Amino acid sequence: MAITGVLRPGHAQIRVLDLEESVKWYTDVMGLKPMGRDAQGRAYFKTRAERDHNSVVLRQADQAGLDFFGFKVLDKATLDDLEQKLQAFGVKTERIPAGEMLETGERVRFNVPTGHTIELYAEKTNVGNATGCLNPEVDVIDTPGITPIRMDHCLLYGGDLDGTKELFEKVLGFNLVERVKLEDGKTDLGIWLTCSAKAHDIAFVRHAEDSKLHHVSFQLSSWEQVLRAADIMSKNRVSIDVSPTRHGVTNGTTIYFFDPSGNRLETFCGGYDHYPDMEPITWTWDEVGAGIFYHNRKLNDAFLSVVT
Amino acid sequence: MAITGVLRPGHAQIRVLDLEESVKWYTDVMGLKPMGRDAQGRAYFKTRAERDHNSVVLRQADQAGLDFFGFKVLDKATLDDLEQKLQAFGVKTERIPAGEMLETGERVRFNVPTGHTIELYAEKTNVGNATGCLNPEVDVIDTPGITPIRMDHCLLYGGDLDGTKELFEKVLGFNLVERVKLEDGKTDLGIWLTCSAKAHDIAFVRHAEDSKLHHVSFQLSSWEQVLRAADIMSKNRVSIDVSPTRHGVTNGTTIYFFDPSGNRLETFCGGYDHYPDMEPITWTWDEVGAGIFYHNRKLNDAFLSVVT
Amino acid sequence: MAITGVLRPGHAQIRVLDLEESVKWYTDVMGLKPMGRDAQGRAYFKTRAERDHNSVVLRQADQAGLDFFGFKVLDKATLDDLEQKLQAFGVKTERIPAGEMLETGERVRFNVPTGHTIELYAEKTNVGNATGCLNPEVDVIDTPGITPIRMDHCLLYGGDLDGTKELFEKVLGFNLVERVKLEDGKTDLGIWLTCSAKAHDIAFVRHAEDSKLHHVSFQLSSWEQVLRAADIMSKNRVSIDVSPTRHGVTNGTTIYFFDPSGNRLETFCGGYDHYPDMEPITWTWDEVGAGIFYHNRKLNDAFLSVVT
Amino acid sequence: MAITGVLRPGHAQIRVLDLEESVKWYTDVMGLKPMGRDAQGRAYFKTRAERDHNSVVLRQADQAGLDFFGFKVLDKATLDDLEQKLQAFGVKTERIPAGEMLETGERVRFNVPTGHTIELYAEKTNVGNATGCLNPEVDVIDTPGITPIRMDHCLLYGGDLDGTKELFEKVLGFNLVERVKLEDGKTDLGIWLTCSAKAHDIAFVRHAEDSKLHHVSFQLSSWEQVLRAADIMSKNRVSIDVSPTRHGVTNGTTIYFFDPSGNRLETFCGGYDHYPDMEPITWTWDEVGAGIFYHNRKLNDAFLSVVT
Repeated sequence: MAITGVLRPGHAQIRVLDLEESVKWYTDVMGLKPMGRDAQGRAYFKTRAERDHNSVVLRQADQAGLDFFGFKVLDKATLDDLEQKLQAFGVKTERIPAGEMLETGERVRFNVPTGHTIELYAEKTNVGNATGCLNPEVDVIDTPGITPIRMDHCLLYGGDLDGTKELFEKVLGFNLVERVKLEDGKTDLGIWLTCSAKAHDIAFVRHAEDSKLHHVSFQLSSWEQVLRAADIMSKNRVSIDVSPTRHGVTNGTTIYFFDPSGNRLETFCGGYDHYPDMEPITWTWDEVGAGIFYHNRKLNDAFLSVVT
Repeated sequence: MAITGVLRPGHAQIRVLDLEESVKWYTDVMGLKPMGRDAQGRAYFKTRAERDHNSVVLRQADQAGLDFFGFKVLDKATLDDLEQKLQAFGVKTERIPAGEMLETGERVRFNVPTGHTIELYAEKTNVGNATGCLNPEVDVIDTPGITPIRMDHCLLYGGDLDGTKELFEKVLGFNLVERVKLEDGKTDLGIWLTCSAKAHDIAFVRHAEDSKLHHVSFQLSSWEQVLRAADIMSKNRVSIDVSPTRHGVTNGTTIYFFDPSGNRLETFCGGYDHYPDMEPITWTWDEVGAGIFYHNRKLNDAFLSVVT
Repeated sequence: MAITGVLRPGHAQIRVLDLEESVKWYTDVMGLKPMGRDAQGRAYFKTRAERDHNSVVLRQADQAGLDFFGFKVLDKATLDDLEQKLQAFGVKTERIPAGEMLETGERVRFNVPTGHTIELYAEKTNVGNATGCLNPEVDVIDTPGITPIRMDHCLLYGGDLDGTKELFEKVLGFNLVERVKLEDGKTDLGIWLTCSAKAHDIAFVRHAEDSKLHHVSFQLSSWEQVLRAADIMSKNRVSIDVSPTRHGVTNGTTIYFFDPSGNRLETFCGGYDHYPDMEPITWTWDEVGAGIFYHNRKLNDAFLSVVT
Repeated sequence: MAITGVLRPGHAQIRVLDLEESVKWYTDVMGLKPMGRDAQGRAYFKTRAERDHNSVVLRQADQAGLDFFGFKVLDKATLDDLEQKLQAFGVKTERIPAGEMLETGERVRFNVPTGHTIELYAEKTNVGNATGCLNPEVDVIDTPGITPIRMDHCLLYGGDLDGTKELFEKVLGFNLVERVKLEDGKTDLGIWLTCSAKAHDIAFVRHAEDSKLHHVSFQLSSWEQVLRAADIMSKNRVSIDVSPTRHGVTNGTTIYFFDPSGNRLETFCGGYDHYPDMEPITWTWDEVGAGIFYHNRKLNDAFLSVVT
């Protein structure tokens, strides 16, 4: 098959400080569709366009951050195969039973060298999107909230970037799309990886502390929708980290902002397609500013320091 | 690997009635970059954003149409493997030697049941895109011509749709994304297939005559670029078949128009991502109009009849 | 003062065949805000962005069409002055008492040579727009319906185009912005007139029958909003006359479509600013197609024949 | 007439530190059309869409800033009338002879209470825009540079805001569209004025020092053109003050950036229409941040301090 193995980002479990406030915010401001709560009290969401039951899970906790980030794989045989490969690579894996998350099959959970918990799973109930699979109408945005297309990717911060890169490339079949180099011209400061033809399905930045979340990103359909998202944020007094601009890396347009718990989120549009025969793009240290924020060509203080 | 086998559409060889006029038109109106001519007199083009040496090849002939459509595969081992699978499936294959097309490696050529000639190849010289792989600037459109991002897909007309569908799915690993049914509710009138996560890499419509081209499509970055393309077409007196509108199938926005030889081309933007775990979308016969042209909800006469 | 006399189009009274169906349609599909009904049973609407109480009035009748089109003038002194000038020009005027239309002051009504009833008025209650005049938020579109910015202009059909042109220019102070000539190169087929710096506040086309409505137009903010409008129309099975395209005249982007009674409406975006020192643009008969529909460069049959 | 008196901003004479460098920059980066130089060595420019001979004049000087800002008035009788009214209001006026600026008629020059030099003129040679007045094609942007539609307005800083406001309203017939109040809730910090139906033709901010320029603004056609402008700026290493965002005041989208001499310029899109019957919008001191930069809801340091 032409696309196989790991398919795409499937779910992100985010820790929030006040669940009820957060449920309201992810519903009203983000425009996500609430999909119910489980016995542990976790709240589930999907976008209007996503077909699987959930993509964002909120868990009340004392500290914001990301519990885990899950990828859907092609099928159960792929799940077994990837678990075996992980173990052969020396990664300890854990099986989370089907049903532990709502409408989600068995998950293979493991930690990557940057400390983050990653999951693979093959099954999540297809509940269909807002328009269905038979003579679908176009899904016009006509409700409050940002209403992204999908939960798209995340950017994670941690120490052993090289180890995580090796694991994603060699075991999970991801390809390197872009990277930013440190002053030495050799060490990677940041890496952007894809498991499909997207400009990124996950990214990592080298950081003193492990297991940190920089942002979870949601896809929008156009630069005008990026503007609409920023207008909605302002109207709702959302704390905006970086207002509409373009990334040099991926060429995508972006807004960085914070949920009520201080988790950074992104609304993102564009980005070129990357295929495995393509050479990765490299950004040198002196141009890292343009790589991250193309218009201002400099990092803001928060980009390298504020994480959850 | 997560993406493997057949990667993407790589080249389309189009027959034109007047080569010099066509070279000028594909350069000035389409905004493609001329990449030279070969000993046979064929003219090669790529877009600014494409990295491989060529994607459109024009050959002078007495009749317009498509000579062949080629897909790039992951590597030479994949090429050998797919050739073997084609032969095992009963498909006769031919090896075209490296260099027969400019800067292109050995190709495996075969006919599909609808009569079209398809090629697979693993190597085409990476000449880089307009911005390169080191600290790239954003590539601003600032030259005449439509300037698409890439040669994106084609739609072909022929008789044995079922046979071609089976070959693309079973041998080449393509997935069915959408289909339109005939009045009987069973027979496919049209099928849209992907080898990656795009809404289509190739499509076929059932037609009395084999080996016909409906259109070759070029990707644009936004609905505003679709408008700019239509303005450029009008200014250059390009014959427009269908002015800017949206497809129900794929949700993409589109213009259909004709090159000076009468080959239909498309400029296309958008389209959702399709993964192999997703159920295909089905359009019934009574809604085929909305499937093809979402706004007017009816086919124009040319759609089903005018092919080259 | 820099802008004086006639300010802008203020209201259009449209005849509909089924009032209740029409009220629902203008609310749900057009996204207008219902503003109440009067003793005669007429239904009033405004857009979210308009500040005056109403801009669209629907009246149940046996035949579709336009009862009258009203312009707001600067103040009551201007109203008196313009009435006097109309009478001096030989135009019979009628005073409609304040309150005959909801929240609307006294109107001066008269017929123009093409047979249409035009009104001038100085007062309509300022009920404010959706965001107010104190620290207003941006008004994000987040409800169903097309949600135009304002009722923008109309295009009317009738016989004595020259007489109407003279009246609007000489008495009401309008300026000619563009015109289309007939085959003789002299006679005007169509004229576009402005009372401000817009590309058109009203337009007329020469036609065998007097007093006809070609369309009432509503302004949208962007080409993407034009696409959204077309999507909403298709989803609601609105009869579309001309799907998204660009006019050569005014350069605006457009959709022509019909309300449930067969009145043609337009959603319109763009158009350059015209000042009184600027020479009008002229379209010759052989280029009238490009003038009206820039992409296809030809008129559709309906444009010259279907009116209400 | 419906629009009379002062028509629109016509020319801005800007001081630059290195004329040759600036001519190159306004041509290549701004995408303005060079229109020649006069005997004094001043360099003239217009946009592709402007019909009058020039709108931007560059003069080499030791210090950046604005020499004067000129408005075109309806005709010579208006010019005489407005000069008389200025003198009656106690404003000293000066006549600059026709031809002192290239292709420009006699100008009436005067100073306003904030110290700025303003000019009125009735004549500037109509050289036509890029597409002409007979069967014009749409003007597709296909050249390097930002390529704005027109020189649109300016924002000036000075002390006696109240005096300048009175002069523009009472003598020149401008209308107040929006204002920002100081902490006392009474004093205007900033005022936005129009002579037509635009959201602003000129604006002023209260400032300790007189005669200062905050920015000269150029109009773009869409939010996507704002993005293209920002990309061009980055590619050309233009110093960007504020990257793409939205103003609360006027609702327009914007970029603030600096020419090579440190003069702040703006590329601007949108803004609602204002008519003289409309109440001005007021921003209170606590919401001034949202008024100026709607997304971040706070002023950057440069906005109130950096002027030329």
